[in-house]
Amino acid sequence: MNAVDELASGERRPLARLLTRIESGDPELRALLPELFAAGRGGHVVGITGPPGSGKSTLVNALTGEWRRRGRRVGILAVDPSSPYTRGAILGDRIRMMEHAADRDVFMRSMASRGELGGLAATTWIAAAALDAAGYDPVVIETVGAGQSEVEIARLAETTVVVEVPEMGDEVQAIKAGLLEVADIIAVNKGDRPGADRAARQLRAMLSTAGGRIERAPPPVLVTTATTDEGVATLADAIDAHRTAARSPIEARERAASQVRRALADLAARRATAAPAWDETLRAVADRELDPLTAAERLLDGW
Amino acid sequence: MNAVDELASGERRPLARLLTRIESGDPELRALLPELFAAGRGGHVVGITGPPGSGKSTLVNALTGEWRRRGRRVGILAVDPSSPYTRGAILGDRIRMMEHAADRDVFMRSMASRGELGGLAATTWIAAAALDAAGYDPVVIETVGAGQSEVEIARLAETTVVVEVPEMGDEVQAIKAGLLEVADIIAVNKGDRPGADRAARQLRAMLSTAGGRIERAPPPVLVTTATTDEGVATLADAIDAHRTAARSPIEARERAASQVRRALADLAARRATAAPAWDETLRAVADRELDPLTAAERLLDGW
Repeated sequence: MNAVDELASGERRPLARLLTRIESGDPELRALLPELFAAGRGGHVVGITGPPGSGKSTLVNALTGEWRRRGRRVGILAVDPSSPYTRGAILGDRIRMMEHAADRDVFMRSMASRGELGGLAATTWIAAAALDAAGYDPVVIETVGAGQSEVEIARLAETTVVVEVPEMGDEVQAIKAGLLEVADIIAVNKGDRPGADRAARQLRAMLSTAGGRIERAPPPVLVTTATTDEGVATLADAIDAHRTAARSPIEARERAASQVRRALADLAARRATAAPAWDETLRAVADRELDPLTAAERLLDGW
Repeated sequence: MNAVDELASGERRPLARLLTRIESGDPELRALLPELFAAGRGGHVVGITGPPGSGKSTLVNALTGEWRRRGRRVGILAVDPSSPYTRGAILGDRIRMMEHAADRDVFMRSMASRGELGGLAATTWIAAAALDAAGYDPVVIETVGAGQSEVEIARLAETTVVVEVPEMGDEVQAIKAGLLEVADIIAVNKGDRPGADRAARQLRAMLSTAGGRIERAPPPVLVTTATTDEGVATLADAIDAHRTAARSPIEARERAASQVRRALADLAARRATAAPAWDETLRAVADRELDPLTAAERLLDGW
């Protein structure tokens, strides 16, 4: 029985072992990927992202409670975008998910390092496939921030929830751009703070007039207070409701395109770095004898 | 005389025309890239980044005044990371650089769209090369935020200044990770607010103990008040002082590697999208008949 077959039991230990191998970039896993990907059981992959301080983790915790009450087995990947220089741990150091730590039907894991199977985004989708194959549904991918890497990781999810706080202030334009790109649902968390409902109304007004993805309705904006569970059941309903839309052929194709592009970039970079001409190419680019685009063409065509 | 030769005059019009072609992704420019890249005059490429609301633009404005007093010709690219869905403009809409708008030795341009020559990062380095070839020194690249795309764009710069505000609060861990990855110099701006000096001290203490890039000294942390020019001359000095370190062979090689990797990713994605098998590949991935990594390998090996 191989590492993928073992997942079917739904037991924690084989899953934990496989995730460790994924995270460490075990090269032997490469051969298992087609099988792992094919072993998916259709768990709903839900991305939850937002800036530091928005209460994402608390909200994931509250949602987990709600899902458990609905009889779901919840898998959570907390993705730490810390750099290769700071391997460590925006999310990983925190004591988290205390409430559900003893629940055998909640599986939580921090993903920090970038393994040899690809960058963090690639590692994350492989890990999400493992949780899906082990029968978790939903599979939650929690990321910090709203930068490009988070956008990319969020794109792997079928349904992406962006968490914001009532006090958005000057950042509203930046938030708007980021939201339109990734949010299927927006949660204005810390809803017990003054101005939460007003902030939600402003967001709705802004999104309804935005020149965003033309073919789509603006994402729903919900107010939540994760610490008291206020609005959390409604959010869980909205996530469920989005599942069907997320599985339309157009959406599935768009996610596949993002995944393949990411894999292509990883693969091209890995092969280029291993190419005999790599060192000399970098020297020539650093000395301005060669522009980077021509350098890339030569590396790519040299294989 | 071609578009690159015309830059040597230092006049604004040929530069503006070329930047428009770069931004719109004029495919004829491809053939000019080696020449453009080789025409660089060694202008110092300075990245300035930080979260929305940190006063980056005001600081760039104040630095520009300082550089002009020192007789430098200042080129500025304000990079707008807005998505393809939100083409438009976090930075571009703002009325900016009023103070220097009439100064013929200050050239400012917002870069928003992603042209056919590559993604925004690639477009930015091509545009920076154009400003360098036109004799601007420094060439400033201003980006919003601290996400992956900004990290990547900042890496193109020889010297990167990260702008923060005194009130960092909960975000300090995330800021730390981001800072360690990209900052050569940190400016705590809005230094007239309470707690600015304290925040700077905290940052220095944190950075001195961090397990960051081991071979490097922690970046200097300066306090600035862009609205009153307080600390701005000191910041300009620190930027100048970093120039030599930035041009060591190791640093130059690392920047070249980032540029080539980015170009490889863009190129691989472009070729894959144009490949006859692209549509069928996406269908197979969306239907889970094929995992994304295997899909990428087949596309890459099919050329």
